[in-house]
Amino acid sequence: MTAKLKTAVLGATGYSGLELARLLGRHSRTDAPLLLRRSAETDESAVSFFSGNGNGHSPLQPFSWFALEQRGVELLFLATPHAVSRELVPEAMARGLRIVDLSGAWRLKQEQHRAVYGFKDSNAQTAAELTERAVYGLPELKPNADRIPSATLVANPGCYATSIILALAPMLAADIVDCDRGIISDSKSGVSGAGKEPTARTHFVSVADNFSAYSVFGHRHTGEILEQLALNNSQFIFTPHLLPIPRGILSTIYVYLNREMTADEIQGCFQDFYQGKRWVRIFPASTLPEIQFSVHTNYCDLGFCLARDGRRLVVVSCLDNLLKGAAGQAVQNMNLMYGWDEAEGLQ
Amino acid sequence: MTAKLKTAVLGATGYSGLELARLLGRHSRTDAPLLLRRSAETDESAVSFFSGNGNGHSPLQPFSWFALEQRGVELLFLATPHAVSRELVPEAMARGLRIVDLSGAWRLKQEQHRAVYGFKDSNAQTAAELTERAVYGLPELKPNADRIPSATLVANPGCYATSIILALAPMLAADIVDCDRGIISDSKSGVSGAGKEPTARTHFVSVADNFSAYSVFGHRHTGEILEQLALNNSQFIFTPHLLPIPRGILSTIYVYLNREMTADEIQGCFQDFYQGKRWVRIFPASTLPEIQFSVHTNYCDLGFCLARDGRRLVVVSCLDNLLKGAAGQAVQNMNLMYGWDEAEGLQ
Amino acid sequence: MTAKLKTAVLGATGYSGLELARLLGRHSRTDAPLLLRRSAETDESAVSFFSGNGNGHSPLQPFSWFALEQRGVELLFLATPHAVSRELVPEAMARGLRIVDLSGAWRLKQEQHRAVYGFKDSNAQTAAELTERAVYGLPELKPNADRIPSATLVANPGCYATSIILALAPMLAADIVDCDRGIISDSKSGVSGAGKEPTARTHFVSVADNFSAYSVFGHRHTGEILEQLALNNSQFIFTPHLLPIPRGILSTIYVYLNREMTADEIQGCFQDFYQGKRWVRIFPASTLPEIQFSVHTNYCDLGFCLARDGRRLVVVSCLDNLLKGAAGQAVQNMNLMYGWDEAEGLQ
Amino acid sequence: MTAKLKTAVLGATGYSGLELARLLGRHSRTDAPLLLRRSAETDESAVSFFSGNGNGHSPLQPFSWFALEQRGVELLFLATPHAVSRELVPEAMARGLRIVDLSGAWRLKQEQHRAVYGFKDSNAQTAAELTERAVYGLPELKPNADRIPSATLVANPGCYATSIILALAPMLAADIVDCDRGIISDSKSGVSGAGKEPTARTHFVSVADNFSAYSVFGHRHTGEILEQLALNNSQFIFTPHLLPIPRGILSTIYVYLNREMTADEIQGCFQDFYQGKRWVRIFPASTLPEIQFSVHTNYCDLGFCLARDGRRLVVVSCLDNLLKGAAGQAVQNMNLMYGWDEAEGLQ
Repeated sequence: MTAKLKTAVLGATGYSGLELARLLGRHSRTDAPLLLRRSAETDESAVSFFSGNGNGHSPLQPFSWFALEQRGVELLFLATPHAVSRELVPEAMARGLRIVDLSGAWRLKQEQHRAVYGFKDSNAQTAAELTERAVYGLPELKPNADRIPSATLVANPGCYATSIILALAPMLAADIVDCDRGIISDSKSGVSGAGKEPTARTHFVSVADNFSAYSVFGHRHTGEILEQLALNNSQFIFTPHLLPIPRGILSTIYVYLNREMTADEIQGCFQDFYQGKRWVRIFPASTLPEIQFSVHTNYCDLGFCLARDGRRLVVVSCLDNLLKGAAGQAVQNMNLMYGWDEAEGLQ
Repeated sequence: MTAKLKTAVLGATGYSGLELARLLGRHSRTDAPLLLRRSAETDESAVSFFSGNGNGHSPLQPFSWFALEQRGVELLFLATPHAVSRELVPEAMARGLRIVDLSGAWRLKQEQHRAVYGFKDSNAQTAAELTERAVYGLPELKPNADRIPSATLVANPGCYATSIILALAPMLAADIVDCDRGIISDSKSGVSGAGKEPTARTHFVSVADNFSAYSVFGHRHTGEILEQLALNNSQFIFTPHLLPIPRGILSTIYVYLNREMTADEIQGCFQDFYQGKRWVRIFPASTLPEIQFSVHTNYCDLGFCLARDGRRLVVVSCLDNLLKGAAGQAVQNMNLMYGWDEAEGLQ
Repeated sequence: MTAKLKTAVLGATGYSGLELARLLGRHSRTDAPLLLRRSAETDESAVSFFSGNGNGHSPLQPFSWFALEQRGVELLFLATPHAVSRELVPEAMARGLRIVDLSGAWRLKQEQHRAVYGFKDSNAQTAAELTERAVYGLPELKPNADRIPSATLVANPGCYATSIILALAPMLAADIVDCDRGIISDSKSGVSGAGKEPTARTHFVSVADNFSAYSVFGHRHTGEILEQLALNNSQFIFTPHLLPIPRGILSTIYVYLNREMTADEIQGCFQDFYQGKRWVRIFPASTLPEIQFSVHTNYCDLGFCLARDGRRLVVVSCLDNLLKGAAGQAVQNMNLMYGWDEAEGLQ
Repeated sequence: MTAKLKTAVLGATGYSGLELARLLGRHSRTDAPLLLRRSAETDESAVSFFSGNGNGHSPLQPFSWFALEQRGVELLFLATPHAVSRELVPEAMARGLRIVDLSGAWRLKQEQHRAVYGFKDSNAQTAAELTERAVYGLPELKPNADRIPSATLVANPGCYATSIILALAPMLAADIVDCDRGIISDSKSGVSGAGKEPTARTHFVSVADNFSAYSVFGHRHTGEILEQLALNNSQFIFTPHLLPIPRGILSTIYVYLNREMTADEIQGCFQDFYQGKRWVRIFPASTLPEIQFSVHTNYCDLGFCLARDGRRLVVVSCLDNLLKGAAGQAVQNMNLMYGWDEAEGLQ
């Protein structure tokens, strides 16, 4: 039996970090991950002991390069704010670690989109080099799939971005969309997508029995969607909304086709594109996915309805924002980086 | 002191009917309404006694024309399925009653839209005449406002339709929309909108922690929206969704403008149109309504965000589907039919 | 027409304070209340403008004695933390104001129960005098009902305490309970009872799909329950739980009777005790109240099931923690203090 | 490699049956289960295909003895109404099948408790014999643990019963409870416990924002609790409540001790009793389990608070009603019946 991979998770107190720790804890190819916290985070291991995993975690240790070395960590997962990732990755790379970063720090190639993050890099040239080397970790898209196995820095996609890109990529690749008429994604996410920090907005009484739009024309995931799909800003509108549920994303996506098509042709377009892809499920025409179907799985579910004129299309895309939208996709990327089965530890 | 209006509610066991009974019970200008049930309905008065009103209802009586006469009812509210309304209204009109019908039976003038209801009228000519006489009960729109005071048959609008028409009417009236590029309403409703009948779809376990689209390209409210806004079918997409909350609707509406505009101009367009309208609230630019703000009120709240290009607009419209979307609007229509203050009994 | 009462609410940003502002805003006997905030509170008036009241509040003003004087305030409502009430009340009384305090500052006569609050009074003697003068504002109990009309300082009861005391008082007054065998209240509250401050515990993801007990053998409301019911600590167990709903309390109360009784006798016991009481509803035997029945009303609903042995009794008590459990009861107390109808402004 | 066990699930359309099918589908020792439906059930396989399992089920087949034979089924799980189980089990036993029955049909030895089910047996003597042979499938209790490995008919316990019996058994075995003073279990369950059939009571709008008690002094699980714990009816009160969440049970249990004890002694009592038991977790003193901790696991979590007098105890017990309360425990029983690790397929 070969030795197991040694991994670490920095930021294992947030929702994505906890989910990732849980997934790695039962992955057959990895040792129990080293769970690290930044000094700003409290050790919530006492709480997490009883939160459903049954084995308990090893207590969270304060982050240090020494702790990583001592454990012999080869792969570092960052479930940290993007500014922290931006700061730590250069040294981590210099130390020979491979990295899967769940933040938005390294997802964007184009300066125009990166601006919203306001990065403050201590070494601009290194940052530029790493930006180039970073691979966008959406393995269902061809260029990424080719680069992930040998990547040292994988920028794990945003949860909304995953749901939207996977819905649009097949149609854009097949060149059947009238992009200039405008593509719209009306997306809705459960509250875990807003993070674990208690705020007036995440208070139970603010969320329950409520529903609201936010960050209209200004959400950070817009940049990665435009880049991955080679769209320009005027071709795409993205409106996120907050759902009164703990987890799950549903994106309702509106597309005008550039020619009249049949439902079978649309169906074929999706099926061909995702042929052999383990974590995308295509629904029969006019059968739409719901959030419950994919929550607690690593699937992205795709369904559509075509108007009778054969020109107007509504695509519905669902996934679990903490799995295919974060930690599950991070494990999927790890599997590809180490040549394992893409589904390992995700079933 | 003048005598109070005598009203009756048929179908006072559904959500809209119950809400209407509650509103009429405390309206200063009406007597306690006569609550009627069709034979198919059970008498739920024992339950409703304790459901929050504090006074108890008089028990529901089985419907009969005699019961209406005996009580001297002048105004009949129908909270019945559309087929029942379609059947009862001709006789009710012949008997000299005024009617506010909460169903979809008399909302549509154009046969093409009416087809989805599959009406089976015993007397086609009478049905055609009544269709002409029926007034669409959305009092914030000019032609309706003029006709409601003298109307004998008011077709109370659908809940989704109210939220969407009120959001679009000012911009269409001002001719600032590029209709041919396509208007989209991505709407979300609480579960009371799906009715009180227990089904697999309204079971708590199906709805909680879930979210789903339904009736894409096929919802019955589409017709009244198109008619009221004078749009054709290819200019408008309407996608309803089911929210895991008891009540409230939020519509996110996407509009392309036919010229570059400023937020102030948009704001002015809405404010001018709804000048003096008691039950529409316009939010400041970039401040969006949430479902919690209008639930348990008769308001329709409108807000918007304009893209930096001044051409793309997201409008958010919120209301309580049982109040401004049903029973509240029915009372508002009654107020106008009898020359009372539009807000009477709704504050 | 007589002049309206001038009132002020300090702490009108919390859930109880907002509800109180709303109730006073539509009370026919009071002017629009002066809404005050402590320096620690932000002015949330912009938010509250659109939160469902339709009139908007006058903006919250910073608290000062001068502001109260200038407005001619006669009655001051305190919706403040108990330490703040403890500090402000002596001066308010000295200035001739009447006070309804929604905090726990003045509810307890016995030092043993007061200890859990850890009051730090600047003038112990004044504090002791005010403690004596304070009237416990549960108007359905005889001694309080007699004293409230002339009270200058009304200590508005706790939400849990109201639900439990109202359920037990009739049986204890009738001396039918075997107190030494032990009385148990297993109580469940919606999240607004935990306050508006965002914490890990009130985060949507912590509360939704969850349920938990807290403060077992240690909740602060225990003292007022014991005092009002003249029970000692060993006779009563109170276990609060957090429900995943915004508002409402249900207490399931277990009582052993000291003799065999019939359901009719129990029913009679409750009905006699609450004869003429406007805000308590007694349910028929074996018909139990549910939280939905009393939410958004000022009612306390009481129902019970008697075991076939006629000795063991389960009483269920429901109310809205923000109304009969806080702001509604405060208005009820005001009504009594000024000789108005007990139901004024609460229907 | 040895051949895998051939199993069947009858009633795989209900919540417990679906969960069981899911668990068996990924169990390493069993073949994919034969999924059967009674004629009254519709084939929901189309729906279940997309409900989160990712593999799809084989379609549900109509039940017949022939279908079981043809597949060579050795172990039959019944997720059927108790009347169906009562009818089918005699023939199933005669045909040499082993059975795990999730209904209440065979849980009770004593006629007095069985009466509430109103069984109508076609052969009273066979029914009596099978009642004797049936083993109550709560493997954490000694007598059951000894008999399950060789049992042919395992009566899988009720969900509430599991949560309550596991909480009380250690203290009763240690004889530290004053039973005559009365034991109370105030239990709360998520809606999946009420079954999948759509009713007025399970409608989303009835459950959401609500909470209610039901079946007070009359719930069917009372009998099995009394039998397993050797209590008589006057010593125990059980009040079930309906929580607005999909799944999970929390029981708050009140016990008076027959002598003064320390928290350490109580803790020891639980730990000794459950020494080596894989699916019961004992929390540290004064740390209480919450529903979220055990949902989606097979654990029963136990915690307690002891009053300062050392005589009054509140025990909190949590589990997932569909796992440890139904399908998970059924798999646990299967594991023991076939000599496998108790945790197989449950992690």
